[in-house]
Amino acid sequence: MPEGARLSGALQPIEIARVTASRAEAVHDVAAVEEPLEIRLHGNPFVVIMRTPGDDRDLVAGFLFSERIVSAGDDLGLIRHCVDPDGAAAPNVVDVTLAGEAAARLETILTGRRAVTATSACGVCGRRTIDDLMTGVEPMRAAWRVPARLVDSLPALLRATQDAFAETGGLHAAGLFDRHGHLLATAEDVGRHNAVDKVIGRQVLMDRPLDERLLFVSGRAGYEIVQKALVARIPVVASVSAPSSLAIALARDGGVTLLGFVRDAGFNIYTGADRIDVS
Amino acid sequence: MPEGARLSGALQPIEIARVTASRAEAVHDVAAVEEPLEIRLHGNPFVVIMRTPGDDRDLVAGFLFSERIVSAGDDLGLIRHCVDPDGAAAPNVVDVTLAGEAAARLETILTGRRAVTATSACGVCGRRTIDDLMTGVEPMRAAWRVPARLVDSLPALLRATQDAFAETGGLHAAGLFDRHGHLLATAEDVGRHNAVDKVIGRQVLMDRPLDERLLFVSGRAGYEIVQKALVARIPVVASVSAPSSLAIALARDGGVTLLGFVRDAGFNIYTGADRIDVS
Repeated sequence: MPEGARLSGALQPIEIARVTASRAEAVHDVAAVEEPLEIRLHGNPFVVIMRTPGDDRDLVAGFLFSERIVSAGDDLGLIRHCVDPDGAAAPNVVDVTLAGEAAARLETILTGRRAVTATSACGVCGRRTIDDLMTGVEPMRAAWRVPARLVDSLPALLRATQDAFAETGGLHAAGLFDRHGHLLATAEDVGRHNAVDKVIGRQVLMDRPLDERLLFVSGRAGYEIVQKALVARIPVVASVSAPSSLAIALARDGGVTLLGFVRDAGFNIYTGADRIDVS
Repeated sequence: MPEGARLSGALQPIEIARVTASRAEAVHDVAAVEEPLEIRLHGNPFVVIMRTPGDDRDLVAGFLFSERIVSAGDDLGLIRHCVDPDGAAAPNVVDVTLAGEAAARLETILTGRRAVTATSACGVCGRRTIDDLMTGVEPMRAAWRVPARLVDSLPALLRATQDAFAETGGLHAAGLFDRHGHLLATAEDVGRHNAVDKVIGRQVLMDRPLDERLLFVSGRAGYEIVQKALVARIPVVASVSAPSSLAIALARDGGVTLLGFVRDAGFNIYTGADRIDVS
């Protein structure tokens, strides 16, 4: 990021390696912050959503309105961030008091709520989300390295298999490559996470191990893409666009090499630089 | 779409109006298909996900694997599409028989399942999804028209409020405009749906009606963006990129004017062309 640039709270400064022309350079960059927000109704856990912090009250009001839990501002009493017994603010937990007609329906609403991982403390945060996602999952320690030139070749290889109209028509693509850069499987879907599930699922059905594979996705990399790779033991994840802060943190803890902005014969290394061979 | 182009099952041919230089022209185009898929375990409803049809068995295997319901191909018995009593295939319902260790945990898995709208028949489909989304929601009939030039101005107005690094850093933006094209509220988030909830929520908290507003979002428009507009009574939704087939169908039924690829002084009209003034 150029010096003096304005940095909103929604963006996190990060250090990355930028690879171009098989040369790596350490640069400052930013990543969009992705954190969980737990919404409680009258103190009862209701739902946990992933979001970028900021405008939390608006988000909660809009979410409850879109989900038709409330039908107007009058249905909303207090919306406030949770405060721990020791007085520490909990920026990722919001408690909502319903009013009017919505309050009368509280029992019904809570009965119909989505499955929520119960959190008794105010402490839901990115750190805890990562710990949850890592439960029962060992960090990866792949012994092989990926040539930078191989990474550069991924977009063209994936695009060659796609319908010419798929990308502009709104389809995401995911490709699974072996460590020599050969394309093994591709899938398309309006949901990037579905495209990834499709390529991974095909290997699961064939009982094929994934620990010598690279996953390449069109568009951005949220934490769920890294999580799917981690569960499937795919040690390298590359995407055409930006990863979120949580994707980077999860990749770091999970030993996943995370590459982004793989395009125009260059890419960013967010984690696992020692696994990329730029010579 | 140019004649003779290959069209995969994941894309649906559509007729749109393409507006450039304040001139509308009917053209053939394609939209990514978005349909629900209900996954059942041993006949029990487990989850409904939105996806692009194709590779459903792979998707289901990958989804159950990513969610750690199964840990290997051995845990999966049969994966098959549901067939109605009259023999009709149900392309949007898949029943899975678990095997091995996963089968032994079936009760636990079903108890911990996400809240699923119970569907006893095999008939989950886009049509039904739209009917569900329209339940208790009247179609909109806005009496005002939007000048094409106003639509063209939206991207620059929204971008002017964004941090220069927000978009490349991976943040989506949503903007709410009045019918004269004045920007009233903006929000950013890693999730496009969250950015929309933030701008709508702010108006809900201020008890401001939304029936003379336009919603503009960066990136693509899935059905959930149209649904949020419909619930909020926002009659015009515009996006920088492509809408899905379900977004278009829901917009048509709900009386929402849906515009896409709003960029480079031009845009596509997917529904509600009578509300756009190209003169």
